[in-house]
Amino acid sequence: MKIGRIERPSPAGPVPRVMVVDLERGVAIDAQRAEQVRRLAAGDSPEAAARLAAAHIPESLAAGLGSASFREDLDRALAGEPPEDALVPLAEARWLAPVDPPRYRDFMTFEQHHHAARAVRGKTTPEVVYRLPTYYKGGHHTLIGDGKILHWPGYSTWMDYELELGWVVAGEGVDLTPAEAEARIFGVTLLNDFSARDRQFDETVGNLGPAKGKDFATALGPWIVTTDELDLGAIEAEARVNGETWARGSSGDAMWTAAEVLAYLSTAEPLVPGELIGSGTFGGACGLEVGRQLTPGDRVELEAAGIGTLTTELGEPHAIAWEPPAREPGRTISGGRSPDHTELLPPRGDAPAPPYPAREG
Amino acid sequence: MKIGRIERPSPAGPVPRVMVVDLERGVAIDAQRAEQVRRLAAGDSPEAAARLAAAHIPESLAAGLGSASFREDLDRALAGEPPEDALVPLAEARWLAPVDPPRYRDFMTFEQHHHAARAVRGKTTPEVVYRLPTYYKGGHHTLIGDGKILHWPGYSTWMDYELELGWVVAGEGVDLTPAEAEARIFGVTLLNDFSARDRQFDETVGNLGPAKGKDFATALGPWIVTTDELDLGAIEAEARVNGETWARGSSGDAMWTAAEVLAYLSTAEPLVPGELIGSGTFGGACGLEVGRQLTPGDRVELEAAGIGTLTTELGEPHAIAWEPPAREPGRTISGGRSPDHTELLPPRGDAPAPPYPAREG
Repeated sequence: MKIGRIERPSPAGPVPRVMVVDLERGVAIDAQRAEQVRRLAAGDSPEAAARLAAAHIPESLAAGLGSASFREDLDRALAGEPPEDALVPLAEARWLAPVDPPRYRDFMTFEQHHHAARAVRGKTTPEVVYRLPTYYKGGHHTLIGDGKILHWPGYSTWMDYELELGWVVAGEGVDLTPAEAEARIFGVTLLNDFSARDRQFDETVGNLGPAKGKDFATALGPWIVTTDELDLGAIEAEARVNGETWARGSSGDAMWTAAEVLAYLSTAEPLVPGELIGSGTFGGACGLEVGRQLTPGDRVELEAAGIGTLTTELGEPHAIAWEPPAREPGRTISGGRSPDHTELLPPRGDAPAPPYPAREG
Repeated sequence: MKIGRIERPSPAGPVPRVMVVDLERGVAIDAQRAEQVRRLAAGDSPEAAARLAAAHIPESLAAGLGSASFREDLDRALAGEPPEDALVPLAEARWLAPVDPPRYRDFMTFEQHHHAARAVRGKTTPEVVYRLPTYYKGGHHTLIGDGKILHWPGYSTWMDYELELGWVVAGEGVDLTPAEAEARIFGVTLLNDFSARDRQFDETVGNLGPAKGKDFATALGPWIVTTDELDLGAIEAEARVNGETWARGSSGDAMWTAAEVLAYLSTAEPLVPGELIGSGTFGGACGLEVGRQLTPGDRVELEAAGIGTLTTELGEPHAIAWEPPAREPGRTISGGRSPDHTELLPPRGDAPAPPYPAREG
């Protein structure tokens, strides 16, 4: 099943709706509306049909994914012939990001991206990336759907794309094994992790993030494909800029599986319904690795077998309202000098004294 | 005004409620219940009183902070004498984190923490931290309130605390100046950014995060103090472990103001209602900087003048279900060798060729 979200007109303005995509018929089907009409036909009162359809298939896909029966609810809603007013021709669809996640974490699971993205800056790959799946937290409030214009922030003169997959979580769970975690993967979509490389490299030197180097916008879509339709470990994908192929690869070239990544994330903190997890950049699948930059007006397409194509067009750099003036070292906001409060306290009888022990195990 | 959240019993199990704290009377007042009773007395029908009270003062404080009239709504709800069943004695309150934020971003605004936290690892402070406020994204699904036991993840043998302030955002806004951003600060609370230093340092070497080094738990509370009650630039605070003072400092020792931090965050992406922003660690205000570690059973108290005290007790390390087995360099999940897809493409006529230009402006 392929599931996306589009904006539909309503008396209260445009509202997001969960849509099931029927490629053969060339339409997206409003699943809540289909369920409402199915319930009416089955004898529900109009009020009950509307209430229960909205409860089972809410406007928030993330909320829907909190229900253990959500997939069955979708199947049931689509079992009959949907009414004409539930259909939106794909040619007319205005796509939102296919999920409204409460969180977005993005990994680096491809070894080649570790090597190549560092090599261009004269760095080598640290051993930790063979010991732990490493990740940063992306901006879940700035996701854009297929066919949108990228908001290029004015603080950057170096824009890049990154070809990734996005995994969407169904249900909850904490301290899962990979086998348990695998059952929490609802589906997969394409993810373009747009990157302001100049700001990102500043943030890397500062040891935190990336943040402003990434969070202006991330493209996601066009829709989520449920895991029964494909093999997460063998998805062939390609990136094109203005029709020219810049990269090709397979999800099978990663170091860590989706199930391993989810199990690692679930350690000591819960997975939550509808959250989004990025696979990390396929090897060679960003401009940084192949010596190229994007420019305003470029059209970036990510395509994956079994999923579809995610297209983004780059807008012009957008003026910014305020830039932080540089600080003078030693000067505080109260106008004084930065104090030194650091004095080593005497070692505690009940705790190890410095130098600190290395991590065990 | 001081605003917290506690769990109260209901027929559907415990529910979070927004409470206004009255320190003089020693009670927390359920603001939605107070508003409901006020509306009944003013002539609303029981149904309308319940509906409007729930709409104006919802169970989610973050949702409430989306309304431009929220502060006036709270004032109005508390204007009369609240009913007895809206009062919870402070001695009996089971505090939740005082806000349920949709996002949590944490800064390093204190110069001394930049220096000292790096010095213990033989590093120096990079120039970028004088040019940009730097931050990482924390775990907004694992916030704990005052008086809770810290969940110590079994992957760490080195636990630390960090004394910070947490700023809570009211309303929305994008591309704000500091003056505009200042009006978006609803209030301030205490934040203990617990840190698994061993995992954090691994993540720093990997150039992403921190993530698992922080996200197992962050303490917040006990309540939010609105900005009319104190000067954000002159809050004196202290950290104690088992009653012994480990650190003291003032918010005035920071390099960046709260308004500057919010303006920076609002650049090219919107602030959202109820989001949480951490000030970063006060100078000297973590064990790392003073040569000490925490141990299970420790009682950590953060106290700030005008706010209150946030207490956390450290639990025993918690067993973990799965640890990632180390990867063999060059080996992929499909069983093959990591391919090299990286070939420099010919330079584009319409884009700068490598080496890349430095960032301008």
